[in-house]
Formats: sequence, structure tokens, C-alpha cells
Amino acid sequence: MTNAQAFGAHAADKPLESIAITRREPGATDVEIDIAYCGVCHSDLHTVRSEWDGTLFPCVPGHEIVGRVTRVGGLVTKYREGDVVGVGCMVDSCGHCRECGDGQEQYCENGFVGTYNGPTPDEPGHTFGGYSDRIVVDQDFVLRINHPAEQLAAVAPLLCAGITTYSPLRHWNVGPGKKVGVVGIGGLGHMGIKIAHAMGAHVVAFTTSENKRADAHALGADEVINSRNTEEVEQHANSFDFILDTVAASHDLDSLTALLKRDGTLTLVGVPEHPHPSPNVGHLIFKRRSIAGSLIGGIAETQEMLDFCADKGSVAEIEMIPIQKIDEAYDRMQRSDVKYRFVIDNKSLAG
Amino acid sequence: MTNAQAFGAHAADKPLESIAITRREPGATDVEIDIAYCGVCHSDLHTVRSEWDGTLFPCVPGHEIVGRVTRVGGLVTKYREGDVVGVGCMVDSCGHCRECGDGQEQYCENGFVGTYNGPTPDEPGHTFGGYSDRIVVDQDFVLRINHPAEQLAAVAPLLCAGITTYSPLRHWNVGPGKKVGVVGIGGLGHMGIKIAHAMGAHVVAFTTSENKRADAHALGADEVINSRNTEEVEQHANSFDFILDTVAASHDLDSLTALLKRDGTLTLVGVPEHPHPSPNVGHLIFKRRSIAGSLIGGIAETQEMLDFCADKGSVAEIEMIPIQKIDEAYDRMQRSDVKYRFVIDNKSLAG
Repeated sequence: MTNAQAFGAHAADKPLESIAITRREPGATDVEIDIAYCGVCHSDLHTVRSEWDGTLFPCVPGHEIVGRVTRVGGLVTKYREGDVVGVGCMVDSCGHCRECGDGQEQYCENGFVGTYNGPTPDEPGHTFGGYSDRIVVDQDFVLRINHPAEQLAAVAPLLCAGITTYSPLRHWNVGPGKKVGVVGIGGLGHMGIKIAHAMGAHVVAFTTSENKRADAHALGADEVINSRNTEEVEQHANSFDFILDTVAASHDLDSLTALLKRDGTLTLVGVPEHPHPSPNVGHLIFKRRSIAGSLIGGIAETQEMLDFCADKGSVAEIEMIPIQKIDEAYDRMQRSDVKYRFVIDNKSLAG
Repeated sequence: MTNAQAFGAHAADKPLESIAITRREPGATDVEIDIAYCGVCHSDLHTVRSEWDGTLFPCVPGHEIVGRVTRVGGLVTKYREGDVVGVGCMVDSCGHCRECGDGQEQYCENGFVGTYNGPTPDEPGHTFGGYSDRIVVDQDFVLRINHPAEQLAAVAPLLCAGITTYSPLRHWNVGPGKKVGVVGIGGLGHMGIKIAHAMGAHVVAFTTSENKRADAHALGADEVINSRNTEEVEQHANSFDFILDTVAASHDLDSLTALLKRDGTLTLVGVPEHPHPSPNVGHLIFKRRSIAGSLIGGIAETQEMLDFCADKGSVAEIEMIPIQKIDEAYDRMQRSDVKYRFVIDNKSLAG
């Protein structure tokens, strides 16, 4: 074991503070990473404040990790000291179920191990995430980063926000000639717009914030629709091949399903705290439309996404913060006062 | 115009009775059909009793029609006098939209013309269905029947119940090696079981009626699950490629979506009077599952279904009735007291 610096909470009602943790010595297939940057995801906030069930304390969040390899185990073949690498939402999975065999570790039948709050034989029995100066991860859950060095902070959010939007866009064959909607322009949605645009689709952004119109265009949206403007929305009836809905708050889905062409799909990536109003089944039947869900992406697909984004020069729009401002960042995130992702400068952990 | 005998209602609260109607003289591309049998669909009941919006009176229901060609127009190439033919839920569509161009007339962007209660230039401005001795339909909406003569009554329900189940089973690639659920063993569901079985799938029937267990096996189900038995249901978690849900009444969808494999689809073919409880989005996200809808099928696909069923010897399980018993049949249908489809012997119209 080695000592590591981290920032975490001892209880749901406590602020995050500096805490000392340990990391395991790198095993034969492990990679030790000096964390440079860590993106701040809504899941971090939900978990550390126990808004979801099952948070184990102390809780050290963070699953949008970028850093540099410092040590590798004797059987590590994929990485070596000095490599720039990333870690996303998963650090392990069973490896032998049908899902893992298909490279869909995020759907592992035995449950993948989350980068934080997941079960581990390491002390204290649950994983600690990227709000830390160091992490040790099996090479199979480490990603290679090919972006230029000056972009690394803005690459971090690709490890969750990027793959969560890339995977459904790929799965539902978004590309040239396709009209694609992205609902919500936040941490996920802004990446959805960028990636769908980079894939060559005609991208339409949906927002309830009129003041995000110019931003949405700058991110790559060909059109922007104010979701509150019924007339503007209805002009697009039956015209979308695919809509990616990144809004987790309970909201009406019928105005969106009505916009899909025959055989179109509305895919949700957020679980609402309270159920959405029950969707109109007639909208599905009368155009053979679907409502689906999608969860992050597999490891191979995450690498594919990182390579795609490196090739296209795509990164997140970020605001860098020192770790000491994390609670303030959470509060601002809850007010949607961030354009569009906070990223922690992990050097600040030493401060 | 020619005079025709029919059975219909003059108002929502009136019983069906014998009424005189007219049919147009066959136009250049029309086929005149002497109707032998007409299946009785729940939609007939909903429409004639104004349980759905927009019923026009007098109302003559019926869209599961089998009969023999008596006359054809001068430009008719597909059929000739004496041919055994069928007519399903549609008698026309715009013919020039994307959906019609794709052979998906049921999704016609300008609205297909229903076999009854649809707009028509013919008197009295809306279409009359198959509770009649004769009908005149454009050849493009007439289907060829290749079943042996003694099966014709039992072929009639294929025109709606058959295609409504065949189309989604085909669209979602049901076949050998696939585990397929069919929920509800009624007019639609019993055909779903037969067709999925004929397609070579492993078929699991879901019913709330313990006494339908033996029937379901006889229809072709490899397994039967009592939907009310939670333990029995949960044993099948994550195991279905596809589930066809034929139950229109409001019901819980979560116990079904939980049974789908990753990327599995639950397809609904009935619009509930009251919304289903809002489906659990987590079930969709954590296995990339979908909830979809499907509406009957296109004309070409209906022909494909009829040919498939003729090849496999598949027909509906029916109880034949004279038209004079139609109100009694409706009442029994509402109590699910039919195995599994009423079919009118249209000769009784002369009685």
C-alpha cells in the first residue's frame, strides 16, 4: 500500500475535505497513475450527498480521470511509465459473462466495479475515485489518450460525458444524412452536440434556456429549438432519426417522440428522481417508434471514442477549479451555472 | 352504385342491425369482392360503440375480410373473377409519401384510409367494412389468399390479428435461436404465439389465466408463464430477445422490460384507454433496452404474412357466428369468452 492524498466526505451532510487514503501496490496487471485532472460529474454529487442509495463513506468521487503512468505491474503490456492515460466510470468487471465477452462491460451481468463506491478487496472495501493524486487500475480498464498535452484537462470529461453520449449516437447509427436531436445543453448534452456534429449528422439542440442558443450553434448545432416554444417544436414533427435526451429531471417525453420519423428512437441516458409522465403509447405504435436507454459505453468503445475525439480535435468545454472549490462547484452545477463541465486541477490537492 | 346488404349501427347506443348500403361500381383499378367471412376485431366494438373518438354513423365495421372476386375494373392486372382474396385494415393511402413509397402504407404521412370509418368520395362519405355481403377495393389493397378452401373462415383474422403480430415479429428479427415472449392470449396473442413458433423461435406465452396454460402449449408455446406469479416471472430475468405485448389494458411494463436481454425490445401493439404506469427508465438504461410500438403492417408485408401462413398451414382459432349474433359476440369478447376469434359467416346476411 502507498499513501495518497484525496478529497472526500465522511458523511452525506459533511462537506468534502482533504483525507488521507491508501492505494494498493500495483499488481501484475496494474497501472499506477498520477492523476492530473478529474472532471466533475453530477453522479459525484448524487453519490457523495447520498441522494442515491448505497453510498459508502468515506466517499472519494471522480470518474473522469486523466493522468500519467508512474508504475506498471510485471505483466502489463499495454502501457508504460510516462504514458498519458485515462480512467472512466469502471475499474473492473467479472470478465467472463456474455456482456464482458461482448466488450459491453458496462452491462456486466455480475455488475461492473465503479471507479468510486464500488466493491474492492482494497482498503476500506470500496473504491476511491479521481479526487485524488493517484490511482491504481488494471490495465484492461485504462484508456490511452492521444490528444495534445495542452488539451488534457478538457479531455477528462470525455471519460464519462463523452462516452455516455458517443455510445448511443454510434449504436443508433448517427452520421451523415441523419437528423439528430440532443436534448439539454449541459455536461452531457454539450458533448452530445459536439460528437453528433463530428459524426457528420444534422444536429438540432433542444434547450429551455434561450440564452444558450448562440452557445449551441458554437458547439456544432445546425439548429436550436427552445423546448418551451410549442410551435417551434411542432414544426419538426416526424423528422428526426434519433433523439438523445440528456435531461435527467422528470419531463414530458411525448413532445419528443412526436418528432421522430417512423422507426426513430428517443434514447434516455438519465434516470429521473421522479418518473417521467407515462409516455403516450400511440406515438410509439403509429410510427413504430422506440424509447430506449443507454449506459456509458464499453472499454473498447471508450477507446474508440477517445481516438475519434482526438482525430476530430473534440474536447469538452470546461472551467478549471482547485479541489478546494468543489462544494461551490457542486452548488453551481445544481443551478446549471457551468459552461459546461468543471474539471479539477489535481495539483491543487498538494496545496 | 350497387345495393349491398350490411349490418351496422345508427348510433353508439344502438345495437347493430341489418342496413342497406351502396357500393361504388368498380373503377378501372377496382376489385369487387363477394365477402364470405369477416373476423371480429376489438376495434370493431370500440368504433361502433364510439369508445374511440370520431365514429361516423351509420357504422359498418369489419376489417378481416375474405371473399371471392366477382368483377374487376378494366385496368386490373392482379386479380380476376373467381380469385380468393382478402382485405385488411386499409383500403387506400396517399401513395406518394415516403411511407407509401417504402411499402409502409400503415404509417402513411397523410393517413391511410381505414376499411371502415375512413374518408371516401363514396356515399355517405365514410367507408363501410366487412359486415356486408360485398365490398369494392382498389387492387393495390387486395391480398391474395393461397390457403385451401376449407380454411378460409379461419384465414380472415390473419388480415388484422395476423399481420399485427407478424409485422413486429419480423421487424425485430424473430427466428431460430431467439427467445420470444407473447403477452396476452387473445385474438392477437394467440396468433403471435402461432406465428413466432412457425418462425422457429423459442416462444414463451404470458397469461393471467391459469386455465389457458394447456391452450398456449397447443398453440405452439414452448413455455407458459402466469404473469401474476412473480417468482415464475423473475426466473426469466434478462433472457428475452423480444417480447410482443398484445394487452391493451393498462398494466405494469417493468416486470416485462426486466425480462429482456441487453438490446432487447418490448413492443406494444395496443393503445391503453388509461396510460400504463410510467415505465422504469433504469430498466432501459442499464441494459440498453427499448419499449416500442407497432401498427398492423404494410400491404406487401401482409401478402408475405399470408403466404408464410399458407406455407406453414397457420390459421386462427375461430368460433363462427351468424351476423345476427354480433352483439352477443361483442359482449362475450369483452369478457374474453372467445377462443380465440369470432368470425362472421357472411352468408347469414341474407338470412
